[in-house]
Amino acid sequence: MKVFKKISPLQKYLQELRKKNKTIGFVPTMGALHEGHLSLIRRAREENDIVVVSIFVNPKQFGPSEDYLRYPRPFNRDKKLCIENKVDILFAPPVEEMYPEGYLTYVDVENLSEKLCGKFRKGHFRGVATVVCKLFNIVGAPTRAYFGKKDFQQLQIIRRMVRDLNFQIDVVPCETVRDVDGLALSSRNTYLTPEERTRALSISKALFEAKRLIVEEGVRDVKKILTRMKNIIKKSSPTKIDYIKLVDPETLDDIKGELAAPMSVLLAVAVWYGKARLIDNILVSINDREKIVSKVPRKA
Amino acid sequence: MKVFKKISPLQKYLQELRKKNKTIGFVPTMGALHEGHLSLIRRAREENDIVVVSIFVNPKQFGPSEDYLRYPRPFNRDKKLCIENKVDILFAPPVEEMYPEGYLTYVDVENLSEKLCGKFRKGHFRGVATVVCKLFNIVGAPTRAYFGKKDFQQLQIIRRMVRDLNFQIDVVPCETVRDVDGLALSSRNTYLTPEERTRALSISKALFEAKRLIVEEGVRDVKKILTRMKNIIKKSSPTKIDYIKLVDPETLDDIKGELAAPMSVLLAVAVWYGKARLIDNILVSINDREKIVSKVPRKA
Repeated sequence: MKVFKKISPLQKYLQELRKKNKTIGFVPTMGALHEGHLSLIRRAREENDIVVVSIFVNPKQFGPSEDYLRYPRPFNRDKKLCIENKVDILFAPPVEEMYPEGYLTYVDVENLSEKLCGKFRKGHFRGVATVVCKLFNIVGAPTRAYFGKKDFQQLQIIRRMVRDLNFQIDVVPCETVRDVDGLALSSRNTYLTPEERTRALSISKALFEAKRLIVEEGVRDVKKILTRMKNIIKKSSPTKIDYIKLVDPETLDDIKGELAAPMSVLLAVAVWYGKARLIDNILVSINDREKIVSKVPRKA
Repeated sequence: MKVFKKISPLQKYLQELRKKNKTIGFVPTMGALHEGHLSLIRRAREENDIVVVSIFVNPKQFGPSEDYLRYPRPFNRDKKLCIENKVDILFAPPVEEMYPEGYLTYVDVENLSEKLCGKFRKGHFRGVATVVCKLFNIVGAPTRAYFGKKDFQQLQIIRRMVRDLNFQIDVVPCETVRDVDGLALSSRNTYLTPEERTRALSISKALFEAKRLIVEEGVRDVKKILTRMKNIIKKSSPTKIDYIKLVDPETLDDIKGELAAPMSVLLAVAVWYGKARLIDNILVSINDREKIVSKVPRKA
């Protein structure tokens, strides 16, 4: 595995590979790699000639009171995991390489960036869109770029940016990886005490209970679904609830009133336990009319 | 010459050329081509295997009260000029191809975009940076992209964007082309009545007089230089003066007090005659100490 800290030698190296018409799979990360990241890397490995992973804790996507400084940076462990998973190129630039003095350019995906987490993390998605745009150009437009659905809003913003700015890149969304007990993997789970971690299980419980209500019990009343989720999460005494929402997965707008098949709904949650702000979501498709119809009489 | 109206077939066509390692020179324009544009095209022709010209009157860079609708669009004439100048590919998309429904993504080059013309044309440079970013991705990162110095602020913003977002593109600045009487060529000159056109000559007169003051007379007092420029322009009864400035060509910040060699200064003007908002500038390098010193005694 080749490790690059500087942009220019990486660009030159990748240009040569591109001339040989190699396909390039790119996995941008902030490091502190877990099975979620590794699932993206393995998929990139299967689908491309060359796998590039970036590790960069991007200061522009952290607010002034956020966890930029204490975000975990186990670089040697990450590097070992990349080698074990047959990564070809690891790009791990220092901050001044990505944002040299006089840096001025930002990418905004309007509207989508202001919803959900955007309301609580001002400027966060501007930082995300900007760094991903830079990384795409540094890699020289990879063939495919891999993003986890755990950060669903981020995924939708990147997809919109790729379409709007005409990047010739196939964005590949990958399933959220969960621990056996249901907790979605996140580098921020390391902030949790064992006791907080147990309480945090209520997030995935609430999501799966809401899915069960919709799919198995045929519940269509949005308020009823949200109330059930909120009750489950509140019982775990979270430090703070940023949001518990049921939204349109494309616009990220709240869905109100009644759900009506066929539609997809995103159940999305952001909750704090101690110093850890955790997000999770699941996408529920309501298109299985027969199943729902067959359930309705049992409900009545 | 191949003409493309759609993005996707153009991207595929250029991808094939790229695989053959052809160098690509790109000249983005809003059409209404004049000798200024043609000088960029000819230079691109000399320096690259393939020349791509785009013609797109970008609605995002016009304010609501600006000249988007009446901006000249002599497409057949432009096409003929491209053929005559050995352009390989002309890209002329309709608006809905560039900004389909649901479009949300914008590129901002902060600070530089708010200076000079940015003060008078809110959102203009956001529109410019966004469309150029899109065009660079559509062409698939050209080898070289050509921009005229007449739009000096635009040139600096594009350069900053290319550096900041890590585009692997060589931005080539090209000299302003002037009519024999000194008027900088612009597609907007067609808005001028013959009488207004004569008055508009005071712009280039003011710029060249200021350069003469600095280089030949050794004048270093910024106020004195600006006053001379303002007097020349005011004598021509302009409809409106947006600005007459002497700025740092990198930061676009006003230079105040005294000029001190070695330095480069940008003399920049935006003035209205009738319905035509005209801009012009010249860059003056103050490094020829001997020449200046020899001039000073004559002044005293």
